[in-house]
Parts: sequence; structure tokens; C-alpha cells
Amino acid sequence: MTDLPAGHVSLGGGDEFDAIRSMLRVWGAQATGIGDDAALLALPSGAQLVASTDASVEGVHFRRDWLSPREIGARATAAALSDLAAMAASPLGILLALGLPESWRAELEELARGVGEMAERAHCPIVGGNVTRASELSLTLTVLGAAAGALVRSAVRTGDALYVTGTLGGPGAALDALLRGATPAPPHRARFAAPVPRIREARWLATQGAHAAIDISDGLAADAGHLASASGVCIELELASIPHVEGVSAENAVGSGEEYELLVAFPPNVHAGGDAFLETFGIPLTRVGRAVTGSGVVLIDHAGRVDPPRGHDHLK
Amino acid sequence: MTDLPAGHVSLGGGDEFDAIRSMLRVWGAQATGIGDDAALLALPSGAQLVASTDASVEGVHFRRDWLSPREIGARATAAALSDLAAMAASPLGILLALGLPESWRAELEELARGVGEMAERAHCPIVGGNVTRASELSLTLTVLGAAAGALVRSAVRTGDALYVTGTLGGPGAALDALLRGATPAPPHRARFAAPVPRIREARWLATQGAHAAIDISDGLAADAGHLASASGVCIELELASIPHVEGVSAENAVGSGEEYELLVAFPPNVHAGGDAFLETFGIPLTRVGRAVTGSGVVLIDHAGRVDPPRGHDHLK
Repeated sequence: MTDLPAGHVSLGGGDEFDAIRSMLRVWGAQATGIGDDAALLALPSGAQLVASTDASVEGVHFRRDWLSPREIGARATAAALSDLAAMAASPLGILLALGLPESWRAELEELARGVGEMAERAHCPIVGGNVTRASELSLTLTVLGAAAGALVRSAVRTGDALYVTGTLGGPGAALDALLRGATPAPPHRARFAAPVPRIREARWLATQGAHAAIDISDGLAADAGHLASASGVCIELELASIPHVEGVSAENAVGSGEEYELLVAFPPNVHAGGDAFLETFGIPLTRVGRAVTGSGVVLIDHAGRVDPPRGHDHLK
Repeated sequence: MTDLPAGHVSLGGGDEFDAIRSMLRVWGAQATGIGDDAALLALPSGAQLVASTDASVEGVHFRRDWLSPREIGARATAAALSDLAAMAASPLGILLALGLPESWRAELEELARGVGEMAERAHCPIVGGNVTRASELSLTLTVLGAAAGALVRSAVRTGDALYVTGTLGGPGAALDALLRGATPAPPHRARFAAPVPRIREARWLATQGAHAAIDISDGLAADAGHLASASGVCIELELASIPHVEGVSAENAVGSGEEYELLVAFPPNVHAGGDAFLETFGIPLTRVGRAVTGSGVVLIDHAGRVDPPRGHDHLK
């Protein structure tokens, strides 16, 4: 197998070796600890290790004509890092396993540049990886982080208030347009093509007293369902409160996937600090609902309870 | 994206959800910490984190008619774990990212069974993963481990003795036969289809005073070259000393890849303990050469120096 850590020594497959050299050239000092069978990392004392792996596959998570290679690299990295944000973890390192078809070979440096830019934004070194030939482009990113008090899904309690970061609906609207062959509105496309993992935001929220979180990759309603199920509560979402981008209804914003915003639970007596959040991070923190006795997710509009939309289903 | 940790809660893609449930059923208690955006793991105090990612792709690393699905799962897992062995690390957890074509859907449980069996053998829990649709089968395994005194590639010194675990040549001979459309000799096939990561062996060797190691995934000569390059030495390999399986010449054993044995450097004054090694692990530990001033790898036969063979190049 072709390990990136072995990259600049020598490799069996000449193409794979060249590919690795190209990426290392793009990353420069961002690629650290390269040169052994595995990376060595220090975990801050008292912290738990947080680990997640996430794949972005051509034709499943994106289409080639929708995104630039740089956007594909950055977006795959953001999606993986978002799982660290959901746990309020600090990034320690990224490992990239790349499945590289010949038809993508010329785009390799731009893909790597996108990965590197997002990693840099998250202050996360690239500590290892793997390149193989493949018939379709895939980027499988494993993210490692450290957390002293990780936020989990199972800690929502009855009475908790639910908050969401940012403004929802952009990725869903962009995806709808792209699937229709239309051009998405630029703000919608930006939210789809260049998501931002809410890493610093999550750590801030954890220090404010949040005790449960999830990232909104499957859509607010679906991910609220994950929180509700893991915590044994019912989550009520108030449609009138959902922060939604211009041109998207609250209903559609609730179903929009690949948001990479956070849904966070706070005890009812804790002030989440929306004003300070907005001032610090430039995005809103909005109360969107609460946890009550029961199970599942309930959407509440002006007329009463309505059924939540189905979860986001990639390109199906 | 579809995270395995979210698996038994709910997912957008119904097929991916079903796939994850199947794997979790096969793994049972082996799959731990599942249910959040990322896994939480404890690192023993004083240990460094060791991390590596490794992909096995249909048509690149194996062909479907060569191996059973269970062998494919176990072999991909062994290859990834071998990178922990090379560092003398203890496994902490495995994350599996699976690219699953429809044509492999029926083999999913056997693939998972293979992964689970190898993980169990290494006493390594499965802590997370990802399933996506794909046009070819791929298993990308990220392995996490802990090491108090990791073995690295760059610590070989002039005068060191080089040792190899096990008996080489089986995978190369099996691969040659398979590529010719012939049936490999059963002992050769077994070494190709069911490699064993030398995890306990590596830790034992580290306690005996070894100070550098690499796993032989590219072939002994090529991986000796990686050691030599990282350490700034020349490695002389004595052809007459190479432990080779029946029916394979020492020359071919030196070039045989995907061995997943270890090449280990010991200071000249340290007794590596081959007899105790054989008694403890049931495989030989053989002195195959030494490190001298210079660079690269030199093969020495009865007539003098010969050129080493080229590195192993997957299915090219």
C-alpha cells in the first residue's frame, strides 16, 4: 500500500509517488511528521482523543461540473473537520486518503490546495495519507482532535433550549438549482461550495455551558432527530424561529443538508449568549426550539404541529 | 456525509443506513463508542498517538476473483494495522471508510466479518467509519495506536544489524501465479491472502533494544531503501541469509511485496534474541544484513554486489 508518510522516500508505484510529491510541494510546512509508517502526535494531557473519518465521492457527494477542484478539496476537508466541531474538539491532525482517477491527475495540485487551505484555516496539520489509483475521485479524510469536555449527542435533557449557528437553507437551495441544471444564486452556491466547520464556535459554546451538539450535515430536522434519539427526548422546532437565507423558506431550510452548522442544546437556565456570539464570530446563534418529553422531532408552525421533512439524501 | 457513528440513529441515505446496520450487527461489541459525530478515545498517559491511513482498492490492490470477501476485509485491516506494528504501537482503534458498489452489496457482511476478525486478533475496537456508494470496492482503514517509545525509520546507525521477521516470498509468488492465471501454491496463497500484522512482535523487539523498523509492504529491498534513505546510511543485504518460503528464490523473496513482515535495526552490541523470538511467536527472526556508510541498498551474493530488484508495484 502506498502511504503518504513514505512519500518522499521512495515508492513502488511511480505515479503514486509523483502524486504524493505534488501534494507535499503544495502543502509545504503544513504537512508534518511525514516520513514514517504512521504519524506520531502528542495529545494534550487530560484531553480525550476525538477521531472521525468521512468520505467525499464524485457522483455521490458532488459532481465535477458543480465545483472547482479547489472547492472539492476544501469542502471535503470542511465536512470532515465539522465532525470535530460537533464534539467541541480542537484539531490535532488530518489524514487524507485519495482515490485518484487518471482523468483527475491534472487537478491534483488544486485538490491538494483546497485541502491545505481548509486545514490551515482550522490550524490543523496534515499528518499522513494515502494515494491510490481509482475509477472515480474520492477524498477520505480522517480528522483527529483533542477535547477536554467533548459535546456528545446523548446529553440533551427535557427542558433544554436548542440553538442553531448561522443561517440555513443555502446548500439545499444550491443543490436544488444544480440538480435542475440551473445556476444557483451566488450566496446559496457559496454556502454549498465553501462550508465552514464551526470549530472555534463549538469550543466557545462548550465554555458557555452547552452540553450537547451535532453538526447539521443531514439537515436540521434529521439531525435534530439524531439528537432526540440519542438523548431519549422529543425535540420541538419552531418554524418561525428558523434562521434562513434569503430566497429559501423556513420549511426548506429545515430540510437543507450539508449545512455544517451546529445544533446545540443548552440547559434552560443558561444564557447561550447570542449577542456575544454574533459579535465574536459574525454569524447568528438562534434559539430554534426545545426538548420535551417524548421522542422524535416535531415542527411547530403558526397552525400547530406539522410533519418534519425527510432527511437530506446526497445526490439520490 | 454518512458517518458510521451516526449509524444506528438515523441517516439520510436508506441504503447506507442499512449497510451500517449490517456491519454493526456483524461486529457486535467490537464496535465501540458508536453514536456521535466522532469517536472518543483515551490515550494512555505518557504515550504518543500513532495514526495511519491505508486504502485497499479493487483492481489496484486485489482482484475480486482472487480473494473471498472475508479475506479482502481481513487483508485490508491487516495492511493498515501493519503500519502500527512498524512503529511498535499498541492499537487503540480502527475507523473504516467503505466505498460500496451495488455489485458488492451482498458481500457486505463477509467483508465486515473479515475486518472484525482481524481487528479482534489485534485486540483493536472498531470506533467509527463511513459508508458511501462507489463504482468500485474500496476499504480505507485508519488505525490509531499508542506508543511510549515508537520505532521510526530514521534511527538506523552505521554498524547496526538488520533483522527480518518471518519468511519472505509467499505473497510475491502468489501474485505472480494469479497474474498468470495459475493457481498459487497454498502456502504462498495463504501468505498473500491472510497476512498477519506483527504487532506483538514489534513491541517485543522494541523492548529488546531495536531502535528502527519498517514493515515490508513494498518488498524487502525497496523498504530497506526507505530505511536507508531516512537514516542516511547504506543497507547491505546478504542474499544467502534471506529467509524465503519453499519454491521461491532468495532473489525473488527480496522483491516480494505486501509481506507485512518487519525489517528491524539493532545496535551491533545488542543480541536480538532470535531463539526467544521463535519460541514466543512461532516465526523466525533472521539477521539479513547491516548498515554501513553510504546510501541506498546493496545486495550481496556469493560473487559480490548485485543490483537490488525494483520495488513492488501493486497490480501494475
